[in-house]
Amino acid sequence: MSASTGNRRPTIAAVAQAAGVSVSAVSHVFNGRTNISPETAQRIREAADALNWRPNLAGRRISGAVGNSIGLVVTQSEESFRRDPFFIRLIAGLTGPLATVGWSLSLTVAPEADEAQIYRQWWTEQRVDGFLLVDLRTKDPRIPLLRSLSATAVALGPAPAAFPAVTLDDDSALTEVLDHLAGLGHRRIARVTSAPGLAHSRKRDRALSAAARERGLQVKTLAWNENAADPVEELLAARGNVTALILDSEALATRVVSHAQDLGVRVPAELSVLSWEDSWVSELVRPRLTALSAPIEDSARHAVDLMHRMVRGEKPPSVVVPGRRLVVRESTGPVPT
Amino acid sequence: MSASTGNRRPTIAAVAQAAGVSVSAVSHVFNGRTNISPETAQRIREAADALNWRPNLAGRRISGAVGNSIGLVVTQSEESFRRDPFFIRLIAGLTGPLATVGWSLSLTVAPEADEAQIYRQWWTEQRVDGFLLVDLRTKDPRIPLLRSLSATAVALGPAPAAFPAVTLDDDSALTEVLDHLAGLGHRRIARVTSAPGLAHSRKRDRALSAAARERGLQVKTLAWNENAADPVEELLAARGNVTALILDSEALATRVVSHAQDLGVRVPAELSVLSWEDSWVSELVRPRLTALSAPIEDSARHAVDLMHRMVRGEKPPSVVVPGRRLVVRESTGPVPT
Repeated sequence: MSASTGNRRPTIAAVAQAAGVSVSAVSHVFNGRTNISPETAQRIREAADALNWRPNLAGRRISGAVGNSIGLVVTQSEESFRRDPFFIRLIAGLTGPLATVGWSLSLTVAPEADEAQIYRQWWTEQRVDGFLLVDLRTKDPRIPLLRSLSATAVALGPAPAAFPAVTLDDDSALTEVLDHLAGLGHRRIARVTSAPGLAHSRKRDRALSAAARERGLQVKTLAWNENAADPVEELLAARGNVTALILDSEALATRVVSHAQDLGVRVPAELSVLSWEDSWVSELVRPRLTALSAPIEDSARHAVDLMHRMVRGEKPPSVVVPGRRLVVRESTGPVPT
Repeated sequence: MSASTGNRRPTIAAVAQAAGVSVSAVSHVFNGRTNISPETAQRIREAADALNWRPNLAGRRISGAVGNSIGLVVTQSEESFRRDPFFIRLIAGLTGPLATVGWSLSLTVAPEADEAQIYRQWWTEQRVDGFLLVDLRTKDPRIPLLRSLSATAVALGPAPAAFPAVTLDDDSALTEVLDHLAGLGHRRIARVTSAPGLAHSRKRDRALSAAARERGLQVKTLAWNENAADPVEELLAARGNVTALILDSEALATRVVSHAQDLGVRVPAELSVLSWEDSWVSELVRPRLTALSAPIEDSARHAVDLMHRMVRGEKPPSVVVPGRRLVVRESTGPVPT
């Protein structure tokens, strides 16, 4: 074991010697090849642990071994990243499945202007084995960029056919939401969005309008104005004769229900509020938020699985994840008479 | 430019040809050496962009270039990671400073049992250039492990001398908190902790007890029991004649103020509640939470700076970050008479 002392980086030869095997046997174990007996592989791993030895990344890259990290580049502002429970749920949901395949998550939050440079750099420097794309926009410039780089990517949300996507089954959720509000007597509702350019918002818009027409409901769209002196006050003033609001994000919906009472608007007695996303924060506010839960952890698991298969040379199909459901709490009620 | 077509990975020779320079000039620019004129360097970078070429990580590692990623291994449960605004603020705060030095964040959330294996693997495989240590425990096993690996690390919070640390100046904050509560007439207060083993909790305990004695205040410690049927109810029942609670984390404090009213305890009329951490969530709940704000973004910036200097061979001293202050909102009030 003397080979391990005095050296900062122990050698593969020392591991082979300690385990009583050849250097190539050690190499095979750490490259994931299966022509070594489990007992020998275990002995080699123990010798490597004892010596603090691992194949270094440089060697593994050159030898063509794959799979260390997936990249997540978030172009929200730091402020909206911090306030959106979606991201922390996504990150938490990714790390477990990533750990089981031995990968880590490479994360950055950056302005949209830096986005192309980051994707280009991470891919061409081989920092990541693929990207998870979130917040896809209409005519998203990332799609041609990543194609030109021949990069591996999986989209979370509706995406062009260039890359496999993990999408939530929104159709049944939409029906549930509209039936809930219609059942409470609401006839005029508004959808509130903060990011009209996002692909998933536009898709949702169209589907919501179509389903609403079938039920004889009027739906209008209101834009959230974060730059207003008081965005909640401005929204409430703009609502007109609408009796229920559906908000795109939980970050906005929780602000509306919390602040409406300060502004003298009683929820749900005067106005019903419903969130298209759900997390622990929906239960923290009063009234508790009626919200559409989403299996974000399932989506994360599917995304890692798709990425893992692509890195191994497969061409996996897109996945539609079921399981959205409406959690009725206290922020929706009968239409005011 | 024909060298770029038909190849997935363009060559350094093609970049040199396109820019009209030698291969070694291209190499120098991307290894950060400064013996190339700014105009030539710019021309080389443009040629590289046009060809989608970058030095790959393997080559850079072998050539001794440094600095791509810092590792953050969080051993909270996924649930508590998701619910704690501290982590999302830390992550958001790290990414900006990391981006300016061209690094990314390698993140995982894992059980404590897997911790040693992850540190060992990430370091020996050279996935990261250093670790940011959070939630340091008393006699933390990571310290001897990282020393045995000769790994680079920066601690966030009080740490043994083995690694430089970024700590918040808690002393003046403590004074502010106790003076606030004493000024409202409180004499019997309790500190509520969910993680008594953490180094920063123990340090805070001792300092709080000492400062309280000076003011003639009685302080007891209550343990948060997440496994209780209703942790808030159990805490409120256990409080005895205490009139004010100081909670370690905002995640717990927001749950207490929101749920206390459901349980018939009026905050602050019957009980004052104060949080040792602050974020947007404190303003979302009603009553709004009186909380001690912390310059987490400043701490993150200092941590990246320390890491950057260590990777470059310096031995930077630890940093104490000032700027904690008490934000008085609605959850603290005069002692009940």
